[in-house]
This record gives sequence, structure tokens and C-alpha cells, in this order.
Amino acid sequence: MAERERIEKQMEFLLELDKLKYITRQSYVADGSRHENDAEHSWHLALMAMLLSEYANEDIDVLHVIKMVLIHDAVEIDAGDTYAYDEAGNATKRQREEAAADRIFHLLPADQERELRALFEEFEACITPEAAFANALDRVQPILLNHITGGRAWREHNVAAGQVLDRNRKTEQGSQTLWELVKVIVEKNTDLGNLRDSREA
Amino acid sequence: MAERERIEKQMEFLLELDKLKYITRQSYVADGSRHENDAEHSWHLALMAMLLSEYANEDIDVLHVIKMVLIHDAVEIDAGDTYAYDEAGNATKRQREEAAADRIFHLLPADQERELRALFEEFEACITPEAAFANALDRVQPILLNHITGGRAWREHNVAAGQVLDRNRKTEQGSQTLWELVKVIVEKNTDLGNLRDSREA
Repeated sequence: MAERERIEKQMEFLLELDKLKYITRQSYVADGSRHENDAEHSWHLALMAMLLSEYANEDIDVLHVIKMVLIHDAVEIDAGDTYAYDEAGNATKRQREEAAADRIFHLLPADQERELRALFEEFEACITPEAAFANALDRVQPILLNHITGGRAWREHNVAAGQVLDRNRKTEQGSQTLWELVKVIVEKNTDLGNLRDSREA
Repeated sequence: MAERERIEKQMEFLLELDKLKYITRQSYVADGSRHENDAEHSWHLALMAMLLSEYANEDIDVLHVIKMVLIHDAVEIDAGDTYAYDEAGNATKRQREEAAADRIFHLLPADQERELRALFEEFEACITPEAAFANALDRVQPILLNHITGGRAWREHNVAAGQVLDRNRKTEQGSQTLWELVKVIVEKNTDLGNLRDSREA
């Protein structure tokens, strides 16, 4: 492929991914003024990967983790954001996201299409140490935002402590230290009434 | 330092940097619906570093570039965004940003404070191949957004083609290929009237 055509495909992909700036998540930004979007979330995860890699359970390739988190939500351009605790949405999520991955990564030159598709599938499969750590960050980041905003998104969705802990089993796979942190934060927010107490009827 | 205190400092820094999500830039997002913010911009640069490293003039350490772009705007939390073509603002920019760097990076444990401060200073000095490439991306990304939005921010600020080219001399240092791309885009947008023609009186 001529360099001109290659760079045009890359620019098209980069501008397509700009749409992640308009995909709203359930989490609020730290001052509670509005919901966070996917581009901001992905930046935050990359920053966490850079600063918290020492807490990964295994030695990890930080660049590989960062690449994964930078593109892990790209499929939401077509498939939308599915809230972690939306059971119906999560039942069809995989299929919607695969179709989105087919279209979106295909905008790239073939070698980069293969690389980014593989990164996305690796993140989803959550088997490698890098994917386990990336998934841990993806789960911990909204917990930090919930904690700092008085459990705002949790309260709106009537989320129970047990749901947060269940969803964070993957965090333990990636980082024992971050899992311990999650447990502390969940306990504190349960005591504060920001999370429903799962032990109650 | 005990692990507990270390991770608390890291979390404080990560939540402080959340403020980059509210710092508005002059660039519009690609659909023109609103201004872009620093967190989104930094994510976009990291994605560009990942996909466009082949165009760097020299062999570069991509992780190092990504780390730089993820934190290069952190100082704007205190110092604000200074528009590229605001001459008065740019005269005091350096001093305001150094004071901000002192406060913000000091939130981190000492080893990470040193690492991130060094990354910030390296980006500003723009001498290493990694810093030159990171600066090239920082200049090219708003040009892409201006191009896709019909020169919206350029028109609002009555920017001339020559100003964009002058500001992009640094792009040439980091990437000859991206510099060629900038020249093509600037010429096209001058023809379209999105940029003032510097050759006219």
C-alpha cells in the first residue's frame, strides 16, 4: 500500500474513534458535574496502568496494557455502553461488540487491524496477565469515581455491595492489591449507605 | 513508605488529574458539538502515538512517548489552557506551568514525582526524539479536528495559514511525514477559506 493510502486510513480511524468522546458512561466525573465519557475513561485507565503497574500480580508489559485500555471501548461506538449491572444488556453485549469490532478495526491498514483486533479480543478473554490487569483497572476506576462522588451512580441504580464485589472478582485475578483496596472502599461505602448492604434482606 | 500510604498518594493524584476532564481546549470534537477537553485530547494523542510511531524521524520508545502525552497537560489544572495563538498568555505560560508542576506532581510518592516531572520537562524541552514526536502529535491533533470541523476554531480566532505552519516547525523535528501532512491540510484549508491566506495583505 502506498504511504499516502496508509496514512489516510489511519487518520480515518483516528477521527472515527473521536466518537468515544460522545459516548457517555454511568460514572460521574469526580466533581459530580456530569457523566464521564469513554475517551476520558480510557485516558484515566492508561494513566492508572502507568502509575499502578507495580500492583499487578505478575510482571506485565505496561505498553501492552496501555494499548489495550486505549482501544478497549472502541466497539461502543456502534454497540453503546452497557452498564455493568444491566443484565439484559449484558446478555447481547458480546454479539453487538463483535460486529462493531469487525467494522471499526477494518478502517485501519490490515496489519494494524490485526493488532488492534487481537488487543481487543485479548482484553475480552482476560487470560493473559496484561489483560487481567487491564480488566482490573477497568473495574477499579469507576469505583474510585463512585467513592469520590458519594456513590452517585451506585445510588441511582440501587447497586448492592455484593454486586460490586462479584463484578470485581476479575480484579483479584489482575491485582491482589487493588482487590484489597476495592474491598475497603466497598465496605466504607456500604457503611455510608452509598451501596445497598447485601447482607440485609 | 508503607504500601498503604503509597497507594493513597497515587489515588489522590489520579483523582486530582480527573480535573483534566473539565479543562476546555479551543479545539472542537469532530462533530463540532462542543469543545474538547484535556483528558480527551491526551487520550487521542496516546492513540496517535500507538498508531503513528512508524512516522517518527528516529527510532522511538513508544511507551515513553505515551507516558509523556498522558501527563503533558497536567499543569493546566492550575495554569489553565493557553491557546496556541494567544501571544500574551504564552509569555507567562512557562512560569505558571512550573509552579503547577511543583504542586501537582508532588502529590505522588517521591519516585513517581521525579519520573513524571522529568517526563513533563522532557516534553517541554522538546529535544529527545520521543519529546519531538510527542510534540508533533500535540500539534497535529488539533489540526485534524480543525480540518474535520471546517476550520471552526481557526475561523473563530481568525488564524492565518502562516501561523499554523510556524507553530508546526516542531512537527518537522519529530516527524517529516506528519509535517508533509500538515502542509497539505493547511493548503487545503487556506483554499477553502478556513484559514486566512498569509500571502494576502
